[in-house]
Amino acid sequence: MADNKFDLIVLGGGPAGYNAAERAAHEGMKTLVIEERELGGVCLNEGCIPTKTFLYSAKILDYAHHGDKYGVTVTGASLDHSKVVDRKNKVVKTLVSGVGAKMKGAGVTVHRGTGVIKGKSADGFTVVSGDETFTGSKLLICTGSEAVVPPVTGLREAVPEGLAVTNREILDIREIPKSIVVIGGGVIGLEMASYFNSVGSIVTVIEMLDKIAGPTDAEISKILQNNYAKRGVEFKLGAKVTAVSGRKGKGSVSYEMGGKTEKVDCDLILVSTGRRARTANIGLESVGVLTERGAIKTDERCRTSVPGIWAAGDVNGRIMLAHTAYREGEVAVADMVGKADRVDYRSIPSVIYTNPEVGSVGETLDSAKRAGIDAEEHTLALRYSGRYVAENEGGDGIVKIVVGKAHKNILGVHMIGSYASEIIYGAAAMVAREMRVDDVRRLVFPHPSVCEAIREAMFSIN
Amino acid sequence: MADNKFDLIVLGGGPAGYNAAERAAHEGMKTLVIEERELGGVCLNEGCIPTKTFLYSAKILDYAHHGDKYGVTVTGASLDHSKVVDRKNKVVKTLVSGVGAKMKGAGVTVHRGTGVIKGKSADGFTVVSGDETFTGSKLLICTGSEAVVPPVTGLREAVPEGLAVTNREILDIREIPKSIVVIGGGVIGLEMASYFNSVGSIVTVIEMLDKIAGPTDAEISKILQNNYAKRGVEFKLGAKVTAVSGRKGKGSVSYEMGGKTEKVDCDLILVSTGRRARTANIGLESVGVLTERGAIKTDERCRTSVPGIWAAGDVNGRIMLAHTAYREGEVAVADMVGKADRVDYRSIPSVIYTNPEVGSVGETLDSAKRAGIDAEEHTLALRYSGRYVAENEGGDGIVKIVVGKAHKNILGVHMIGSYASEIIYGAAAMVAREMRVDDVRRLVFPHPSVCEAIREAMFSIN
Repeated sequence: MADNKFDLIVLGGGPAGYNAAERAAHEGMKTLVIEERELGGVCLNEGCIPTKTFLYSAKILDYAHHGDKYGVTVTGASLDHSKVVDRKNKVVKTLVSGVGAKMKGAGVTVHRGTGVIKGKSADGFTVVSGDETFTGSKLLICTGSEAVVPPVTGLREAVPEGLAVTNREILDIREIPKSIVVIGGGVIGLEMASYFNSVGSIVTVIEMLDKIAGPTDAEISKILQNNYAKRGVEFKLGAKVTAVSGRKGKGSVSYEMGGKTEKVDCDLILVSTGRRARTANIGLESVGVLTERGAIKTDERCRTSVPGIWAAGDVNGRIMLAHTAYREGEVAVADMVGKADRVDYRSIPSVIYTNPEVGSVGETLDSAKRAGIDAEEHTLALRYSGRYVAENEGGDGIVKIVVGKAHKNILGVHMIGSYASEIIYGAAAMVAREMRVDDVRRLVFPHPSVCEAIREAMFSIN
Repeated sequence: MADNKFDLIVLGGGPAGYNAAERAAHEGMKTLVIEERELGGVCLNEGCIPTKTFLYSAKILDYAHHGDKYGVTVTGASLDHSKVVDRKNKVVKTLVSGVGAKMKGAGVTVHRGTGVIKGKSADGFTVVSGDETFTGSKLLICTGSEAVVPPVTGLREAVPEGLAVTNREILDIREIPKSIVVIGGGVIGLEMASYFNSVGSIVTVIEMLDKIAGPTDAEISKILQNNYAKRGVEFKLGAKVTAVSGRKGKGSVSYEMGGKTEKVDCDLILVSTGRRARTANIGLESVGVLTERGAIKTDERCRTSVPGIWAAGDVNGRIMLAHTAYREGEVAVADMVGKADRVDYRSIPSVIYTNPEVGSVGETLDSAKRAGIDAEEHTLALRYSGRYVAENEGGDGIVKIVVGKAHKNILGVHMIGSYASEIIYGAAAMVAREMRVDDVRRLVFPHPSVCEAIREAMFSIN
């Protein structure tokens, strides 16, 4: 096989792309990954991982500030944001080179550049990057997503000005802003609001909907909001941003709320109003791949409308989470080699890494109703858990189980409280494996633990 | 039914007893619990819960001390041990009264006193407590266990002297000893060694076996030992304590190791060499309940040798863990009312709440070999997990999967590292539900998380 001819060309080296490439190589496919920036994608370079290094440092600071409740006195605690950024860069570099090593270990070729699909010949699909032309029998599109900056007066101009930043630029600012306005109270906005609240910024979150945290269970969203409101974060819900003005260090955001126009001054604005699939300028039209509302249309096997072309990750616009991307990449490769597999979109967990953490999987009572499922929910306060009480003075966490009325099968688990991020995977397994309440009752959970509240909640279901 | 006549008498109000009593009441049984001390048993009053309040405070102190690695500078961090003890007492009180409220809510009668079985009449089993006599159609024995103080020269005398303490007394000392010798490097010993190391004591652990942490996977035990050795804990392995002398604040422990006798001075000695079932003086002989090596013999339905009498919890000497006790209590009640159920002893998780934490479930490669199971193990460094890297500078955690060679079914999961205590329940479900490697590969774990290392490990298994 010629050097520029591959069994599989993967466009994009993020979680969907690099993971699929590795699996494909293990299946014996000669695989090429084309990536224009760093391997690891948004998740590793400007998303999940960098924010987690920030939030972990903030957690240590929070611990120091609240230690007195637990018998620990601290006279002086301070966070050096610039050091946190340095450490973030180090962690990201380590992990990016880990992905590189993984590609090398699996025998995957990595090409640095922008890949554009140019059409199909008898040899396969043609992808051009700069001066080079590659041919792939199969194509996997994993070009990801990018932050949307909405068309608000003054907002797009505020980006080059440095007054407004997206999830990308905010990770590299070296000074903590005295005040920050977060436009959009979804996961990214809340995690960053949490960080800047911990490190001492005045934080205002402006959200168009009447609740924060997107599709998260409404009661849990409210608990999360209350926790941050107590710590001083201002929430403007049902509020529409109308204009942005000023410059870095001296800006203001105008918004309409309840029929009135208000204005809040701030040093910095974080725009976290959503993300859009990156489907432009990659040559989809040359091969006729269908898109829907800007994202590539895929089925549960990650097939696109064109035989021989699959898509995985944010670019399909389904669930923009790195772990969904991993799984989609795996399913796409399985489908390529003729193994039966599909993505089970019902059982994909999601996490908000705030403090308290939120973990969710499956249906909420609301979403079940909308889907026409006859469901019921059961809620247990985490105060039931001895470990939760031991570790949370005045904690208000809950766990909520959504079950089908007829068969008491577990449709969803939603929790807010310590360790939710590491607990929710087990609940995802319950949903995926279609376990029933009685099945979970028979499992043994370690004591004392926060997770055992899930088991105990099962006993409140008749 | 007369006031002193019950469908079920439960001897002992610890995890096995109180949980079983609640379930029995829900099944419509008129239920009595007899408890001589506080409801909640050893676990709540002098075990799991108190130690977790201690360890959480120590964790906050550890965070403060190691914050600089994460960009957080903390000056003047100190732990007030007496305040930690006060808080422990408050937490225990809250939870004990929670158990009381639970009993009341379920309609369970609680009698405070020591119950002794006196025989069987046509009405049922007779149990006497002080002046009162109760009759129960059925009997559930949950009298728990107590610490063993081995017959070492001077050791038993050192207890009333205050030089030596068990898991019970150590929770109420008000001053941190300058130096402490921990006899027995099992779970209790290690958790306390961890606490006293964090708060500044000189800690020596003396263990008869050549490894710490009992049946824990040997590689994981070694990693745990290395972590504490780095922090200054001295480990004397393969060492037999021969004599104890001195008084509180000025004691010494002699031990033989490698043919030589050595001696270590200390302020305090913790005896954590094991626990024994509490079967004496409760009248077992009056009804002929069989014991084996001091513990009540039970089957997987928690039946004893006598029809109408069940036993659950530590008193059966099987797996002395609170969550085993819960489950056994539930199974006993299910059996009483004719529901098919059994305790699955293969899938009971165990945790060591040190820092790093250890979580284990199912077979190790060693135990599988001993059981004649053809198994293999696969180990992944937690450095694979982006969250682990983000939160652990220089972390050496691992996760190890033990699978059957023929069917790639998951027999055991063992890990050391952050959140292991809250992650292991999901692995226990994999073992209990007899999932295979391919089943776990198809589950979606949240990213970034430490738990996803379990999933990734599955991909290293062919």
